[in-house]
Amino acid sequence: MTLSKNKIKYIRSLELKKFRKEEKVFLAEGPKLVGDLLGHFACQLLVALPSWLAAHPEAHAEETIEATEEELTRASLLKHPQEVLAVFRIPEYPTDTDLPAQTLCLALDDVQDPGNLGTIVRIADWFGIHDIFCSAGTADVYNPKCVQATMGALARVRLHYCPLADFLSSLDKDIPVFGTFLDGENLYSQELADRGIIVMGNEGNGISSEIRQRINRRILIPNYPAGCETSESLNVAVATAVVCAEFRRRMQ
Amino acid sequence: MTLSKNKIKYIRSLELKKFRKEEKVFLAEGPKLVGDLLGHFACQLLVALPSWLAAHPEAHAEETIEATEEELTRASLLKHPQEVLAVFRIPEYPTDTDLPAQTLCLALDDVQDPGNLGTIVRIADWFGIHDIFCSAGTADVYNPKCVQATMGALARVRLHYCPLADFLSSLDKDIPVFGTFLDGENLYSQELADRGIIVMGNEGNGISSEIRQRINRRILIPNYPAGCETSESLNVAVATAVVCAEFRRRMQ
Repeated sequence: MTLSKNKIKYIRSLELKKFRKEEKVFLAEGPKLVGDLLGHFACQLLVALPSWLAAHPEAHAEETIEATEEELTRASLLKHPQEVLAVFRIPEYPTDTDLPAQTLCLALDDVQDPGNLGTIVRIADWFGIHDIFCSAGTADVYNPKCVQATMGALARVRLHYCPLADFLSSLDKDIPVFGTFLDGENLYSQELADRGIIVMGNEGNGISSEIRQRINRRILIPNYPAGCETSESLNVAVATAVVCAEFRRRMQ
Repeated sequence: MTLSKNKIKYIRSLELKKFRKEEKVFLAEGPKLVGDLLGHFACQLLVALPSWLAAHPEAHAEETIEATEEELTRASLLKHPQEVLAVFRIPEYPTDTDLPAQTLCLALDDVQDPGNLGTIVRIADWFGIHDIFCSAGTADVYNPKCVQATMGALARVRLHYCPLADFLSSLDKDIPVFGTFLDGENLYSQELADRGIIVMGNEGNGISSEIRQRINRRILIPNYPAGCETSESLNVAVATAVVCAEFRRRMQ
């Protein structure tokens, strides 16, 4: 079976959120990434070179198409197309207020850069954080650029898009909701927790005033030497990593 | 004085390393960044709207040109040109082996993405690390994209491009040279230092075998829970931040 023009058009359309939303699917490319995601997400369509298919007889999809290199190149959104691409169904995760009562979660308040979002998903995966609650204004993790940037971590981290302020308001009052602020309390001298939510803000504006009111634990990442003239802030993914690393260090 | 076609061509040529190297200058754009760099670097050419110049009578350059918005737009490499741009002379810093004997430094072994490099310069600045030694294969920090990504940290962090393996070999044997490895020793259970060098490797390949031999302290950033299946690595800028944060936490 060859890859039809219509299928190529369908695959390429998934660059746009409109079509991903309509079809409730997303695109992933490359043997490493597709291999990581198969088995975690229902695969609607698998397109690969004969050599890849022969090497992966266990790969299961609703539809599998053997393609030539030329066909793959035409379907691919990458600069350097690889031997396999796959269309997966977007999972639906319940937005459960019990999660932050039991485990450590992240929340993103309008993180807008797909690269930053992908990096944050990798960081969450590295530090064993499996749930990220995202405001509606946060970048779409199913954007192909973002999917590629997660490098497979998407298989182990659930993203919950929700009205973030309402979600935080609905949590029990004793659940710690952390946020980073330039006038917060030193990360290294305050008590942390093994449950609750760490909120990270927008690249330019930080945490919005609406969300700020829901934060009950204000954190500062200290610069060095403390209080000297340095950069005014760290990149949001970098700040996420420094904070998550310290939470997990305390639990070791 | 208006901005001539030749000047516009000159400014735009600085997108290319060839011309930056020939002229030993680099381009910075926007009031925040230009403001941060003026006074730290010799300014060869300052191009600004009359309103910016009127508000900054102290701004000094070898040549100052008052430009219209249209002229600035034609000279700018940004999507959204701002009210001022400046061409600065690239400083020459001595590559001094005494530095890692006295303070904590970073070394980059072929970090190739300008965005990662810019982020690492901001991280160094935040954590009070003022010297970064870069292999010849590391991205050029004077690339306009990288200059913009440093967000002014370039004023406080010196980048030394040098033959990195030779430089590390020339250091006294008692100077700690740290590097991150997946089979290194846990960052949180080993002794760190307030001097020496932390080496970070290439995005895809990590630390090269040539440089690896010069590393005498192997660090692992532990994932959580330790040893479980997670992402295979952290982004290089993210790893830099986690390591630097821990070095500085110990010194507080």
